[in-house]
Amino acid sequence: MPPAKLQVVPLGGLGEFGMNCMALRSGDDIIVIDAGLMFPEAELLGVDIVVPDITYLLENRAQVRAIVLTHGHEDHIGGLPWILSEINVPVYGTEFTLAYVEDKLEEHGLLDDSDLREIRPGERFTIGVFTVDPIQVTHSLVDCVALAIHTPVGVVIHTGDFKVDPTPTDNRLFDLHAFANYGKAGVLALFQDSTNVERKGYTPSERAVWRKFDEVFARTRQRLFISCFSSSIHRIKLAIELAYDHGRKVALVGRSMADSAEIAADLGYIEIPDGLLIHPGEIRNFPPEKVCVMISGTQGEPMSALSRAAVDNHKHAKIEAGDTVVLSSRIIPGNEKAIYRMIDHLFRREAHVIYEDGSSSPVHVSGHASQEELKLIINLVKPRFFIPVHGEYRQLKRHAELAGAMHGAVGQVVLIESGDVLEFDELGARKVARVPVGRVCIDSGSRTDVVEDLVIRDRRHLSEDGIVLPIIAINKLTGRVESVPEIVTRGFAAGENGFLDHARQIVLGTLEVSSDEEKADYGVIKEKIRQDLKRFIVKNTARRPLIMPVILEI
Amino acid sequence: MPPAKLQVVPLGGLGEFGMNCMALRSGDDIIVIDAGLMFPEAELLGVDIVVPDITYLLENRAQVRAIVLTHGHEDHIGGLPWILSEINVPVYGTEFTLAYVEDKLEEHGLLDDSDLREIRPGERFTIGVFTVDPIQVTHSLVDCVALAIHTPVGVVIHTGDFKVDPTPTDNRLFDLHAFANYGKAGVLALFQDSTNVERKGYTPSERAVWRKFDEVFARTRQRLFISCFSSSIHRIKLAIELAYDHGRKVALVGRSMADSAEIAADLGYIEIPDGLLIHPGEIRNFPPEKVCVMISGTQGEPMSALSRAAVDNHKHAKIEAGDTVVLSSRIIPGNEKAIYRMIDHLFRREAHVIYEDGSSSPVHVSGHASQEELKLIINLVKPRFFIPVHGEYRQLKRHAELAGAMHGAVGQVVLIESGDVLEFDELGARKVARVPVGRVCIDSGSRTDVVEDLVIRDRRHLSEDGIVLPIIAINKLTGRVESVPEIVTRGFAAGENGFLDHARQIVLGTLEVSSDEEKADYGVIKEKIRQDLKRFIVKNTARRPLIMPVILEI
Repeated sequence: MPPAKLQVVPLGGLGEFGMNCMALRSGDDIIVIDAGLMFPEAELLGVDIVVPDITYLLENRAQVRAIVLTHGHEDHIGGLPWILSEINVPVYGTEFTLAYVEDKLEEHGLLDDSDLREIRPGERFTIGVFTVDPIQVTHSLVDCVALAIHTPVGVVIHTGDFKVDPTPTDNRLFDLHAFANYGKAGVLALFQDSTNVERKGYTPSERAVWRKFDEVFARTRQRLFISCFSSSIHRIKLAIELAYDHGRKVALVGRSMADSAEIAADLGYIEIPDGLLIHPGEIRNFPPEKVCVMISGTQGEPMSALSRAAVDNHKHAKIEAGDTVVLSSRIIPGNEKAIYRMIDHLFRREAHVIYEDGSSSPVHVSGHASQEELKLIINLVKPRFFIPVHGEYRQLKRHAELAGAMHGAVGQVVLIESGDVLEFDELGARKVARVPVGRVCIDSGSRTDVVEDLVIRDRRHLSEDGIVLPIIAINKLTGRVESVPEIVTRGFAAGENGFLDHARQIVLGTLEVSSDEEKADYGVIKEKIRQDLKRFIVKNTARRPLIMPVILEI
Repeated sequence: MPPAKLQVVPLGGLGEFGMNCMALRSGDDIIVIDAGLMFPEAELLGVDIVVPDITYLLENRAQVRAIVLTHGHEDHIGGLPWILSEINVPVYGTEFTLAYVEDKLEEHGLLDDSDLREIRPGERFTIGVFTVDPIQVTHSLVDCVALAIHTPVGVVIHTGDFKVDPTPTDNRLFDLHAFANYGKAGVLALFQDSTNVERKGYTPSERAVWRKFDEVFARTRQRLFISCFSSSIHRIKLAIELAYDHGRKVALVGRSMADSAEIAADLGYIEIPDGLLIHPGEIRNFPPEKVCVMISGTQGEPMSALSRAAVDNHKHAKIEAGDTVVLSSRIIPGNEKAIYRMIDHLFRREAHVIYEDGSSSPVHVSGHASQEELKLIINLVKPRFFIPVHGEYRQLKRHAELAGAMHGAVGQVVLIESGDVLEFDELGARKVARVPVGRVCIDSGSRTDVVEDLVIRDRRHLSEDGIVLPIIAINKLTGRVESVPEIVTRGFAAGENGFLDHARQIVLGTLEVSSDEEKADYGVIKEKIRQDLKRFIVKNTARRPLIMPVILEI
């Protein structure tokens, strides 16, 4: 029997933000931790989501045994429809995580064919050579786990996303003891969340927003609107408890908010007293001071309930002068303009708007561990190898530096990125190979349409300088040009009137100086026209539209 | 003689960020305060800058006497080339401001025809019925002024951009006494900068970064790169002084950095000891610990010197493992991804990168007054009317609330936005009319090319879903269709192979069921083809490309 080995292969999330996905392989068994998506950058025009390239999994299809999820955020589960439609394996997750997954798979018509398996913190299960022990952790979402994975070469721990919240609203504590026990017994490797490595100190508890929320409830004389991420179950729970205490009915407005609250209530994460919830259509039947509206759309998404309410375009959520609106979330970079535009509209409606302006006690706290929490877990686990995960390169690097300075607690720090194959055996660990990784761009028009890079490049080009199409009709029998070339433009300001005429002359000129052989070879003649026209256009407009000669055979 | 009146007409910057521009009219005299630009939002595809609509000025062309500038930042002077090319009037500004203006007008070939007039703090000048008194203020730039304007109905004060910096690096103090004297004598209206109204307390002095800079100089063992906005003259001055103290030569890399430092040195704002400056080409001739490189490109602009150095693509600025890079600027919203991408590259080069991560003493401070400074000026000036300027709507509103609570110091607060005409007379002030305002989008390909809304809309459409062009050749004599329709697509993923064939059949089908009269009317037949093809494409791809039928007469 060959000596035991473990290969760890991050397929996404190491060196980039989002689409977390990591494969573990030992012998003939591969398990995958998380299957996330990434929201595209604005420059990926028309792309709706981005998922990891799973060539590695497809090439080792026969060995892939399962996907194990740490929690239900999109950057950990959002790639599932895409991945399961390529390679349908069992999916393990906690009750709450699977509830989100079910919704998602249902939406994509994949639920019936999926094999979802519920796991519980502290209850070990086996997949091939691996035994997986889910450990309860705290985060901005509920029912999240880290994974301690027993492998033939030792135990590795993957933290998933976490913070060490001493007072979670659901009272399900971070299981420090499990980390301590593994640390005592000996851990081969710790893979830890790097998201907030740049922040000093401790991340505040989810309960830290209670004080501000309570103050807002106490001071608000009219309608109170609270918006948060629909997955912020802790936040929804606090708001519902406070609404009850302050004698306000609660309406859930926006599909994601209503769905998420329903799941959380079904699973016992939120207790909703009888008669507290009202239908959005009933809001107008209650005095303003008796209503709290939980509404989705913190990021200023144009079609969200809050964005529509802000411009008085929502059927049920009417915001009036003197109402209060709380935005209980962070501003995701890239969304500033949309969010502030929405806030401006709320101000114009003369609402009191409470948002993160750095000037008050927090209405939002982060879900990720800051430096002191990261060090705490490292000290508990004392891994032989430490590997930062979940972060852009600078975050991985800073996390590596942080752990590298903890000499008594960490044997060796290894910095790897998506695509690196890190191999562990009895002698140690080393990078042994690279596998193909990358971003796969999905157009959500159809459910899993991959957009090719070429199409995105064209779109970018089109979006910046527009398009110019010289169209020439050529008689396929005689090779004669049968018409004056037509020049069609779009997204391109052609300038003064004579411009297009002049461009037509350029094309005619190119045709005249070309031989019959050139004209018969459409590739050659198209390229000649493109070159000549490009020179003319750049010189006269200083712009570089996409120029695409079209030859019509008649 | 009719009773005296003053009309104040903001043309930009009130209710939007940037393109500050405000007209003052009394009788037959109009003066304009500032002529700024706005950097376009990403959704204005291919637009380089945005300037205010100056229809109001053009319609009153004969009355416009001058433009008076408060300082040299782009959001106050950047619209000048566009405005002067439409309406060439004298431009008043301080020495330093005019130096920036000259550069800009030269670049646009407008300098020779411009009439630039230098002003000095404390030296009054007269334009028509107005007497203007420039008051020295402090800001992130140097040689900035507020304007006290004596009008037939009283004195109005426009603060321009400012903070109250008690220790500016150039020792040119904020002229509190001038504000106090006007306050004692009586001020009709105060127009005050709202940019930082959301911040409590005081904005730190430009000197506040000295401590961190000094520490960095003391600790850096290799090359030191410092990047800041090229207009951060205070920052450049500090860095040059510290470089001298710590025995490092200084190289200025990047055109804007070199130009700006040269202007500041010429005008005496920076003293550069003999022999301190070296040419970028000389960097390699000095030991790393003897060099400080001031480099432009804090915002991750792809072609900037720092972005290129970060990917080892700059001729002179080579960043090596162990070098230190300081980003001494804020992250302008919208630029996060580009900036962090650049920082990631710097980390990959194993540079020490010092940036605003919220975890250290500041390497950057704001140039705008926080709440306590705003209140200080209001208390000094005690205006009858207070009007917030320079801000998005929420900022104007919060500034109005701040001033509205200062009962002893402010008579009345008036909230106006761009386009409102605010009229003052002996009885008081009121909004009397609206004038046309808006954003004019400029493509910098040619120097003042206005991009029409339609073109931008097309570009957005193209960028999201691409373009599909069915092309049909029709014999203009017989009306017969002379070829199988060609379908050209771009930026559009056509899906499986048969798709285009199928689309061709759709177009042929439309042609077949159309009468000869319809086919003779190209408008009708194009629209029918567009409709049919659109239905087919939406159904089969769920996308909505721009569909543009082209008919070629042969």
